[in-house]
Amino acid sequence: MTVEEFKIEGRNAVIEAFRSGKEIDKLYILDGCQDGPMMTIKREAKKNNTFIKFVDKERLDQLSDTGKHQGVIAMAAAYHYAEVEDMLKAAREKGESPFLILLDNIEDPHNLGAIIRTANLAGAHGVIIPKNRAVGLTATVARTSAGALNYTPVAKVTNLVKTMEELKKEGLWFVCADMAGSRMYDLNLKGAIGLVIGSEGEGVGRLVKEKCDFIASIPMKGNIDSLNASVAAGVLAYEIVRQRLL
Amino acid sequence: MTVEEFKIEGRNAVIEAFRSGKEIDKLYILDGCQDGPMMTIKREAKKNNTFIKFVDKERLDQLSDTGKHQGVIAMAAAYHYAEVEDMLKAAREKGESPFLILLDNIEDPHNLGAIIRTANLAGAHGVIIPKNRAVGLTATVARTSAGALNYTPVAKVTNLVKTMEELKKEGLWFVCADMAGSRMYDLNLKGAIGLVIGSEGEGVGRLVKEKCDFIASIPMKGNIDSLNASVAAGVLAYEIVRQRLL
Repeated sequence: MTVEEFKIEGRNAVIEAFRSGKEIDKLYILDGCQDGPMMTIKREAKKNNTFIKFVDKERLDQLSDTGKHQGVIAMAAAYHYAEVEDMLKAAREKGESPFLILLDNIEDPHNLGAIIRTANLAGAHGVIIPKNRAVGLTATVARTSAGALNYTPVAKVTNLVKTMEELKKEGLWFVCADMAGSRMYDLNLKGAIGLVIGSEGEGVGRLVKEKCDFIASIPMKGNIDSLNASVAAGVLAYEIVRQRLL
Repeated sequence: MTVEEFKIEGRNAVIEAFRSGKEIDKLYILDGCQDGPMMTIKREAKKNNTFIKFVDKERLDQLSDTGKHQGVIAMAAAYHYAEVEDMLKAAREKGESPFLILLDNIEDPHNLGAIIRTANLAGAHGVIIPKNRAVGLTATVARTSAGALNYTPVAKVTNLVKTMEELKKEGLWFVCADMAGSRMYDLNLKGAIGLVIGSEGEGVGRLVKEKCDFIASIPMKGNIDSLNASVAAGVLAYEIVRQRLL
């Protein structure tokens, strides 16, 4: 298991970290800040015996990795990468068909964070990212995930194709998006499923695409080629949600 | 009509700008760059008699507003804001029911760009933003829109509520997202419609919400509160697409 230490920045991200029971080692708060969300953060800190250090804006700016601390930075215990097996176990325990989201080399931390956020709300049991090239769980990812990183497990695997092969033995089907595919409404996406999202520039890699059972197309009426990767992930994940609900 | 001058940065954005017939005044290209997309850009520049200046990385970094120029920056003729009336006219000319996306104070340029991109692909006739507080058409917005800004008109209005009142007279219905609303699948979103997306922090404002005819909820299974604004816009816009298609 890999461990990465980092800061949690921004009010919502810090409040969510407290609420999810995450261990915060230390809080840096902008001196004199008294608004509602900040009072919530101070209350949570008191409840958890978290050490608070009041600092000026310059100090916060200096500490910030994202440049968007909104007056608060938490030094948190590290995020742990999960194992794929834990995700399948979580699905079993909930009595649900597994629903995983696999990212084929997403490089933009905003996209990764937004996709983890979507995974959480769409009821996916986890997000799988490859070890090479792709972005990992950085502070920007944590902030953009708006707290979802505290709940939705993320696994990092050496070889996405090999992981897909193993998951097929567990009964998962895989779907990826491509303009040449079948209209997503016409596919049956109700069972145990892995949704594969390609990278921003190149889409889904050839070897990964060959392992997919379905290729789904999102209807495109416009003049340009493709949706933003996190928007495409959201639209497809919610087509899966719709089919599972109805 | 407001005019804003700016740079277009990044390969896809520059290629799309050429292809859409946008007027490029001057191109800055990283000296020695010979890969496929860059050759396409040079070819387009030649075809359009665009002046190319080959520069080193330092010069590009210095010129860049986004920090993500990918070796090319175009100095473009300004983007013009459109008028709402033009959007209705475009819908009429295509024989389609108007489909507009209204943004209630989106502040993140990545979100605005991604939403314009979604609007283009979902077949919306335009995007309406308010004059105050919200982000305008900056270089980051243009880059994140991946060229959609060349095709999908964006109007800037003084008062969103007043614009909604005027559009209601034109037969539009308005829908916004809120967890307390009706499940989006159960609403009829097929007619002339304005989709309202709230700001990242505060959602849809009270006065704007009061003008909405429908409040739609996106099913949420997770532990956190809300989707990223551009993902929520994508999921809702594609529910409209689905209902219009089927």
